[in-house]
Amino acid sequence: MNINEELKEFILHGYRQYIPHVSIDCAIFGYHDRQLKVLLIKHKFLNGWCLPGGYIKRTEKLVEAAGRNVKERTGIEGLFLQQFKTFGDPNRANTDKFDEEKWFALTGIRMTPDNWLVDQTISVGFYAITDFSLSVPQPGIMAEACTWFDIHAIPHLEFDHDEMVKEALHTMRVQLYHYPIGYNLLPEKFTLSDIHSLYETLLEKKLDISNFPKKLITLGLLKKTTEKRNIGAHRSPHLYRFDKARYDQALSEGLVLS
Amino acid sequence: MNINEELKEFILHGYRQYIPHVSIDCAIFGYHDRQLKVLLIKHKFLNGWCLPGGYIKRTEKLVEAAGRNVKERTGIEGLFLQQFKTFGDPNRANTDKFDEEKWFALTGIRMTPDNWLVDQTISVGFYAITDFSLSVPQPGIMAEACTWFDIHAIPHLEFDHDEMVKEALHTMRVQLYHYPIGYNLLPEKFTLSDIHSLYETLLEKKLDISNFPKKLITLGLLKKTTEKRNIGAHRSPHLYRFDKARYDQALSEGLVLS
Repeated sequence: MNINEELKEFILHGYRQYIPHVSIDCAIFGYHDRQLKVLLIKHKFLNGWCLPGGYIKRTEKLVEAAGRNVKERTGIEGLFLQQFKTFGDPNRANTDKFDEEKWFALTGIRMTPDNWLVDQTISVGFYAITDFSLSVPQPGIMAEACTWFDIHAIPHLEFDHDEMVKEALHTMRVQLYHYPIGYNLLPEKFTLSDIHSLYETLLEKKLDISNFPKKLITLGLLKKTTEKRNIGAHRSPHLYRFDKARYDQALSEGLVLS
Repeated sequence: MNINEELKEFILHGYRQYIPHVSIDCAIFGYHDRQLKVLLIKHKFLNGWCLPGGYIKRTEKLVEAAGRNVKERTGIEGLFLQQFKTFGDPNRANTDKFDEEKWFALTGIRMTPDNWLVDQTISVGFYAITDFSLSVPQPGIMAEACTWFDIHAIPHLEFDHDEMVKEALHTMRVQLYHYPIGYNLLPEKFTLSDIHSLYETLLEKKLDISNFPKKLITLGLLKKTTEKRNIGAHRSPHLYRFDKARYDQALSEGLVLS
């Protein structure tokens, strides 16, 4: 089966392998050096941008479907993934931007009203956070572009994806007070200033440096190493690393930071 | 159409009015006088207890479907309702307790493998909190019982509903730090000790009374009234009420309590 045969099989009979009426969408946030971005995709048959997403295989858990999608778009496996909300407004998929001719040129198939892809769909939203400098965005065969956008320069998105990004950001920011973050987003050893910048960028607010990273130390998540970083005359702050066992425990049990 | 005709129409052709493959389930928590309970239902065709739930009309938002279900089971409209997680493990609906004969006696219909109710379903979980003393639990025609269970005496539940209750409780407890609670759960005017008991019962832990309700006052959520409650010689604590405008604002914007 070549790639087009596979695509045709998906469009015509995908309901045999995937659950109809349900999709996942992924708000993949990228952090690096005080910048926060989100990964967007431009499908060949739509005029606007949207979040990456897809259907759930009948044998997959929801988080596995999201992980598969995130890996396909970023090339990165095993990211921190959190379900944040499910979207099901009756008019959520409304778009006047579906381009039938582009769809036909791409797939060779005319959509009919009884096709399984046409009926009402609810979508389970996941968010992920990665270091965007480590990713290699992949549009895949249905899209012409897959690109990081600065969080302050997101275009108007298709469907209800503007609301999805807003809700994903809100949930991520609330969860920063209850789950540890930073592993895979910072180098293995980092300064308190590095992790302070990470929190400030994700939360988009100024935090008291004497309070915020110290709380992470008090909770045992950060360990001081014997090394220092030399950043200039008389300035060589200590390097810290995560205590991975405490970190993983906090990830599974939750914590209260504030 | 009598009630049985309506039921038959739902079983055979419900997919016309409802979205197949997706349901909602509701963890309805009940608080009163330092007790926390959850509402469970015993379907006539299952041997165990489960959470109340149902399907989503094609014209409904998810939260409207949950609100309809909560109202049908408790008689109460307009409860605080929060989506907490969507459940979609491939084996989540596995039960060996579906009683075909009881189902047939109830509905007059033999289930076939192609029936829309039989295929894999993912479920959107909502939690609600109410004052259980104000509710009138209603089993409905498909169930033989609908009863409040103390949170410490919940039986093993059908499907993945044990996990749903655990996740609902976890989310509710995390959200207590970010959304106000108490309106409709306490009398219009209450003492600081009343609201302290509410938080302690929902969080299942001891809280510092000099800190926890005071934070609600600092944030402007609680207003002192001129009235006192007489609870004995030399003991007449002040009564407080919610500032509803501040409360609603905190509900829409979130807050950070700790």
